Amino acid sequence: MPLLAPLYLHCCLSRKDTVLHTVMHEEACSAPACVAEQMLADEAVYRELGAILRVQSRASTVTIARGSSDNAASYLAYLSVVLGGHLVSSLPMSLVTLYRAPIDSSSILAIAISQSGRSPDLIEPMQLFRRGGAATISMVNDTCSPLAEACEWVLPLHAGQERSVAATKSFICSMVASARLIAHWCQDQSLLNALKQLPEALNKATVQDWTPAIQTLFRAERILVIGRGTGLSIAQEAALKLKETCGIQAEAFSGAELMHGPVVLVDAGYPLLIFAPRGPAQAGLLKLAEQMRQRGAEVVLIAPDDIAQRTLTMVSTDSEHLDPISAIQSFYGLVEAISRKRGRDPDQPPHLSKVTSTW
Amino acid sequence: MPLLAPLYLHCCLSRKDTVLHTVMHEEACSAPACVAEQMLADEAVYRELGAILRVQSRASTVTIARGSSDNAASYLAYLSVVLGGHLVSSLPMSLVTLYRAPIDSSSILAIAISQSGRSPDLIEPMQLFRRGGAATISMVNDTCSPLAEACEWVLPLHAGQERSVAATKSFICSMVASARLIAHWCQDQSLLNALKQLPEALNKATVQDWTPAIQTLFRAERILVIGRGTGLSIAQEAALKLKETCGIQAEAFSGAELMHGPVVLVDAGYPLLIFAPRGPAQAGLLKLAEQMRQRGAEVVLIAPDDIAQRTLTMVSTDSEHLDPISAIQSFYGLVEAISRKRGRDPDQPPHLSKVTSTW
Repeated sequence: MPLLAPLYLHCCLSRKDTVLHTVMHEEACSAPACVAEQMLADEAVYRELGAILRVQSRASTVTIARGSSDNAASYLAYLSVVLGGHLVSSLPMSLVTLYRAPIDSSSILAIAISQSGRSPDLIEPMQLFRRGGAATISMVNDTCSPLAEACEWVLPLHAGQERSVAATKSFICSMVASARLIAHWCQDQSLLNALKQLPEALNKATVQDWTPAIQTLFRAERILVIGRGTGLSIAQEAALKLKETCGIQAEAFSGAELMHGPVVLVDAGYPLLIFAPRGPAQAGLLKLAEQMRQRGAEVVLIAPDDIAQRTLTMVSTDSEHLDPISAIQSFYGLVEAISRKRGRDPDQPPHLSKVTSTW
Repeated sequence: MPLLAPLYLHCCLSRKDTVLHTVMHEEACSAPACVAEQMLADEAVYRELGAILRVQSRASTVTIARGSSDNAASYLAYLSVVLGGHLVSSLPMSLVTLYRAPIDSSSILAIAISQSGRSPDLIEPMQLFRRGGAATISMVNDTCSPLAEACEWVLPLHAGQERSVAATKSFICSMVASARLIAHWCQDQSLLNALKQLPEALNKATVQDWTPAIQTLFRAERILVIGRGTGLSIAQEAALKLKETCGIQAEAFSGAELMHGPVVLVDAGYPLLIFAPRGPAQAGLLKLAEQMRQRGAEVVLIAPDDIAQRTLTMVSTDSEHLDPISAIQSFYGLVEAISRKRGRDPDQPPHLSKVTSTW
């Protein structure tokens, strides 16, 4: 990854003297280089797959994923509907593994997303779907894994080895693979062009200074994280990381769902993290931030640099559809710092392991 | 509703001397009678609709709903896949109202669920879908509402007037309408028979004593609520009610997703509410409860009376698919009591109104 190494080194070195060097931090910093590597690879596979999906239309598209990978699947689902009108549902694996639901495999396109590709509860449904005639795609980091083996198509994440339990670069690479797949499926040339420039934007996002939010957030035990549309997926990812690495009970909501109940929690001093990237959902999110500030909530508003009332600046990419990726890249630096400030080791969250096998 | 009046009266009267009489409590107690009324009505409509859905197959089924109604939609989605293999996705309204996504309306069956039928963000998508050739169904309590008007088919909830901001009987009636629709669609006679007996089981559930959990839960500021499969929807509903009426930050997860990050939060003394109704997901949920108890968590295990290690008893119905409905009926009594014990008025949650209009 020679193209991006200098900035990557700068980013890590600039912190070396003052802070603990964590694997999570190192891996998050390497995400732009991983994305650059991914963008140089597998173009023919994506192009061929896109063409096939346009011709061999399936009735339903489902994603199979857990944790961070399921948050990437949420991003894929929104992009797929926004750009192509293709509805995508996140399929709970229990419907296959426990309930043995009578799903007609031949009518579906099933997309599994996983870093390790080793969770049995992902592998079994994909094997079953493929045997039944489904189109099967895995977006997977470990291309030698049983999950990659189980699927007809493999879209490698190119995130390199990931040692931190809290996924960072593999999540970013899953979002990028999702955007590439949808861009090829929908023949969206402007998104494809923007993807090529993404590593540069992600480098800027990596060194973006989000430390002003540490003071507001590090003492919190409860946080709501708000997004909407294509930005909801990163609100979900941010909430999960705040739980995993900081032990903060953070929950994600769309700005609209917030008003249907959860807003009861928001009183004076309550910390609220609002992601407001460019796009049709932004105006409502800015209005919400204003309302919640008037109520006395501690609003951390994350928005591009043309929004005066922002707390933190998110780096704009060459497409508003990719802005959530740069925002979560900057967030990883913030959450890692909050974790350490709370006296935790973000590399070793209690009770978690890298490959999770559930029943 | 003469059939069920005596028990309803008993339930309310038995508390009259000792506790504040809230509208939420009164409305929750009347749910069995509302269900009985619903089961006596509209049978021909459900039958005709079921027959049409079997013949005029649509590529995708989507639900449009918010808050409690979206939790009922989650129940509908699980039942639909388990019994018929029909995939259902919860469609974020912003994809229509803000993103103007190019969805092919002619290929979808759209089901809206709402108590008031007056939220503009539900009405607009349904109007658009119907104009585009979608099959449209509303499950709505107010059958004179614009939402009912907007849809081709109306399945009335028969919940009567609901004054409490926190929905109870309308949620129960939405679950029942969902089960009826799926039962007719899939011609599941055993589920149809079980539905007929449901009011009786709900009466038992209404007077079930869940007070032993008050002491564990009323001081909590953070709770995780666990379900799986068809029981996940009531975990979501319980979490929402704990937020709305008690100001507790409660979040719902499937037992499997819990292990992919959120479990970090669970240490000694952490309160965990686990719904474990009969069915293929039960064994794993019981194992999880045991593991979490060994870790010192304050586990409130809700299970049928054959599960010795249960904390609270859920009433079994005539079909395991309906057990979640009886469980949430008993839960409403519990959460209303917790709300009062915390010094709140469950009828007047701060910052909420009965009809929510969002952007």
